[in-house]
Order: sequence, then structure tokens, then C-alpha cells
Amino acid sequence: MTDADGVVVGVDIGGTKVLAGVVDGGGRVTRTARRTTPGRRVVASQVEDALVGAVAEAAGERALLGVGVAAAGFVDPAGERVMFAPHLPWQGEPLRDLLEDRLGCPVVLDNDANCAARAEAHHGAARGARSALMITMGTGIGGALLLDGRVLRGQNGMAGEFGHMQVVPGGQECECGRSGCWEQYSSGNALVRNARALMAEQPSVLTDMCAGGPDRVTGPMVTAAAEQGDLVARQAFASIGEWLGVGTANLVAALDPQLVVVGGGVSAAGDRLLDPARAALRRTLVGAAHRVVPDLVAARLGPEAGMIGAALLVARPQ
Amino acid sequence: MTDADGVVVGVDIGGTKVLAGVVDGGGRVTRTARRTTPGRRVVASQVEDALVGAVAEAAGERALLGVGVAAAGFVDPAGERVMFAPHLPWQGEPLRDLLEDRLGCPVVLDNDANCAARAEAHHGAARGARSALMITMGTGIGGALLLDGRVLRGQNGMAGEFGHMQVVPGGQECECGRSGCWEQYSSGNALVRNARALMAEQPSVLTDMCAGGPDRVTGPMVTAAAEQGDLVARQAFASIGEWLGVGTANLVAALDPQLVVVGGGVSAAGDRLLDPARAALRRTLVGAAHRVVPDLVAARLGPEAGMIGAALLVARPQ
Repeated sequence: MTDADGVVVGVDIGGTKVLAGVVDGGGRVTRTARRTTPGRRVVASQVEDALVGAVAEAAGERALLGVGVAAAGFVDPAGERVMFAPHLPWQGEPLRDLLEDRLGCPVVLDNDANCAARAEAHHGAARGARSALMITMGTGIGGALLLDGRVLRGQNGMAGEFGHMQVVPGGQECECGRSGCWEQYSSGNALVRNARALMAEQPSVLTDMCAGGPDRVTGPMVTAAAEQGDLVARQAFASIGEWLGVGTANLVAALDPQLVVVGGGVSAAGDRLLDPARAALRRTLVGAAHRVVPDLVAARLGPEAGMIGAALLVARPQ
Repeated sequence: MTDADGVVVGVDIGGTKVLAGVVDGGGRVTRTARRTTPGRRVVASQVEDALVGAVAEAAGERALLGVGVAAAGFVDPAGERVMFAPHLPWQGEPLRDLLEDRLGCPVVLDNDANCAARAEAHHGAARGARSALMITMGTGIGGALLLDGRVLRGQNGMAGEFGHMQVVPGGQECECGRSGCWEQYSSGNALVRNARALMAEQPSVLTDMCAGGPDRVTGPMVTAAAEQGDLVARQAFASIGEWLGVGTANLVAALDPQLVVVGGGVSAAGDRLLDPARAALRRTLVGAAHRVVPDLVAARLGPEAGMIGAALLVARPQ
């Protein structure tokens, strides 16, 4: 989406960073810029400052034809406001109009998981699939249902909150205020919790890595330990992979998609996560012997998926 | 779908009965015929005999313009075969072609829950909704997702198997061979199981109704007892209603529909079932305070929904 007159920029704004990039018509990223997200205890305009700064830096001297924003929060169905964002100071923020005023070009807005799914549908792992589930595993679980390349948005724009489907009655407490949510058993947070619990019972290289304080264990540490063959780390991955498969089986029973794409930071673990998930999906999916069980594959576009999908929305608003 | 030259007939074939009817263009049923389903231990052609007999009786002297069949089983995505039906002798049966040969008119074929959902979308409780979940509670739970009045069929034609989403890890064994499926906690079977368990602990009119043998308790008995104010029967309904709400909250988190329609035989209990479901939906749905929570309403077309939806498919194949 570059032409002689200007560029289209996609921006992904999450709890920790703002990533902006010029995206061409083939979904390729030609130039990027980053900012640190100011956090949720600042005024909203400070977050908007970071966003506008990253867009300007990515665009450089080129004129802006349009900007797509992928936001880590609930976006209203009209694509005008961020209703609520757990890690940002936005509550009902009329972000689209505010940014159009500041940037002087059309702005489109969508949820980050929807944007990542759209990018995978057009240029990544879900390309050509008639229907696909996108499951985004980061701190928690987000996602989207793709039908003929389009994201199902729902009446509130809140479809795809897969992480808050209850899988264990009376189970682990969740940040959402309820308990037993899927993301409490299969996510970056769950990976770290599993590793901490297992470390108390078995020797692990994590004990050295975290300098003796299990509270200091992080997801990247567990990933590194698993790569070194550490059994605690591998069991922690096997457990979240198993739960990924169980929850996916529920969604496949309901929606019978052609493909399941797993993205987000945790999916970088690849088959260490996906193999136990595939096994659990086959074991727990109803009628598995009488149906084509969908492939469960890793997303292809990595951390740029949200930014690319936001830029796609400028040219092809749904 | 009656005109000077002939009629369109819809047929619903379940485990116990075959119901055929002439359906007009407004979804009205003008003439019906019934047969008893021969069961699953007969040859397939005997079931087809019952089906053809019911169609012929419903049509009477009028020519057949087309026949739509709603089957209680898995129908392939092309609408040609019944792949598997738990209560019928069909396994990969090429029902569409067989019936076209015998009836001498075009035949269309779909799953019964999909047909019921289509009928409710065009002429019943989901009319005008952009998106709706249809949850069909009978012996188990079936259902469908309606998007702009169309049923999501899925890659295998198996979308909507909501009853086999796992809600309790290691829970009640299910006829599907797995355990903890939603329909083990919220269905006609679950209602009867709950009532039997409660009867062992508390006095109940059900003890007289079933002549002392809890094994003889049936769903209609529990309904009658609840209407008389029996506490055991009311608790049995409250429990399946509560689980209806919990499972619905999972689907609403994932799909954010505008409306939830509850049909099937058990839904005849109305608010006795739906009030506890509505309360549980509000309590367990993620972000309920930040969204429009969909209405949960009873289906309108009753036991004729499948037949009507099958007939609709003749005129408007999806």
C-alpha cells in the first residue's frame, strides 16, 4: 500500500510496546518504528502521543494515505472507540476521531487479535482456508473466527474472547474476576505458574536461572530451560499444550473450522506446544473418527501480524 | 411453497418419529403425516420406506415440487449423505440420491438442528437477528450458529455440536465415549438423572408417579412434578438451567451473538429452565458489565421447526 503519493501505516498497540510499520499491498513491511507504551496509569493523550510518534517515524517524509490501529482491548462494533483495555488508560476513548484529527488522514481501528487473524488470512498461515480459528497465546488467550477471510466481530465487537471460556468449574481465579477460565490453564501466565509449582518438587535449571526466587521466573526463562532439556520446563509446556488441545476441541466441536492457527508470543515454542495440543485435540474432539480433524499450525507472521492486519483494514475495511 | 402445480414437503426424521408436512412460502404448515421410526436395528431401506410413506401421505394428490429432509445425524457438507446417525441405521447412506429416485423430485438434506435454526431465523424467534445461537435441548444438546440468517455448516457439516464441548474435566461419562460433555449436565437426560439422585434424599411426588422405581422416571414426569410445585423436580430443572447458562456464556464469549434461542423438547419448560440460565449467563459471561448481554429466549416453532426448516431449504438452498 505504497504509491507515488504516500504510504499506509499499521500500528499495533499493546501493554508494553507500540509497533508501527509501512505495509505495502502485498502485506510486506518496509519500514518500522517502536515506542514503549506509557502504561495504564498515565493520561490517555500520552498513549496517543506515543502512537502518533511511532506512525510519524515509520512514515518518514512520505504522506499518510491511511492508518490502521490494532489495539489490545475491546473495540466497539463501529470501529470508533476503545471501550476498555486492561493495560491501557482507555475507557470509551474515541480513538479513531482523535487520531484522524492528529494525523490528518483516515484511521481505522480494530482489536489486535482480529487484526492478527486478518493478516494470517491474507498473507500467512490461514491463506486460502474457507474457515479458520485463530488462537492467540500471549499473557492470556485471545482469538478470532475467520469465515471466508473475514473476521467475525459479534454484536459488541467482542467475538473471539476464547480465553474466558470456563474449562474448570471452580478452578483457578482469573484476572477477569471469574474462575476456571481457559487462559488460566493455557497461556504464558499458565506456563510460568506451572513451572513455579513443579520447581518446588523437582530439580530444575530454572532454580539457577531465577537466582533462587521462583517469583522471578519468566516465560522466556521457561522457553530457554525447555530448549536445554529441562524436565520441569518441558512438563510446564506439555501441560499448557494439552490444555490448548482440550479447549481447541471445544471450539472445533462448535464451529468445525478447516484450520486452527496458533499465534502470539507463546506459539514461538512451536511443536513443543503444538504436538501435545494436536494429541489432545484428536483425543477429546467429538466424532474424531468420523470427520476430518483440522490441522493445528503455527502462525507465520510473528509479532508483526497485528500491525500488518491493521494496515490491511485501511484498504479493505470489513 | 404450494402453487397450482404442486407442493413442497419438509420431513423431520428422528430416533422415534418421522414427521412430514406441506409447508407454504410463509413457513406455514398446511397438512402433516407421521410414522414411527423403525429404529436402528433394521435395514436402511425400511427407514426410507417410512420416510417416503409419510411424504406421500402429506402431499396427498398434489405433485411434489421438492422435498427437504431434516435428519438426526451428521450430514456431509455437500448435503448428499447421512454419514452417521446414533439412532438410525445410516452410515454414509446416499440418502439424497436414493430419495430423488424414489420420490421423482429434487431432494435436499441437512442436519435437524440446522433445519430448526433456519426455520427460527426465517419465521420464528431469531427473525431479524444478524447473528444468533440456536441451542436445541432434547435428549442431548444440538445447535447451530446463524449469521445473517444462514447456518454455519463447517468443513465436515458438523458445526453446532455444542453438547460435546467439555465443561467438567473427568466429569460424567457421555454416550460419545468421552466425559464431562455439556449435555451430561444440561439436557433431558441430565434432568432425569438429577431428579433420580435428588429423590433418593428428599420426598417427592415423583416417587408415587414412577410407582417406586426411580429408573422409570421420565422427562415428562419431572416436568409434570415441577408444575405441581415439587421441590425435587424444581431443583432438577434449576440445575440444568444453571448449566445451560454456563455453557451459553462460553459460546457467547467466543461468538458474541445478538440473540440466543433455546429450542428442543426441554425448552417447553419455558422460564423454569430459562430464568436460571439467564442468571448464570450474566454471572459467568466475561465482561458482562461492558457489553450488551444477548437475550436468551425460547424457540417459537416447537416440534415442527425441523420440518419447516427442511422445506425452506428446497426454495433457498444454502
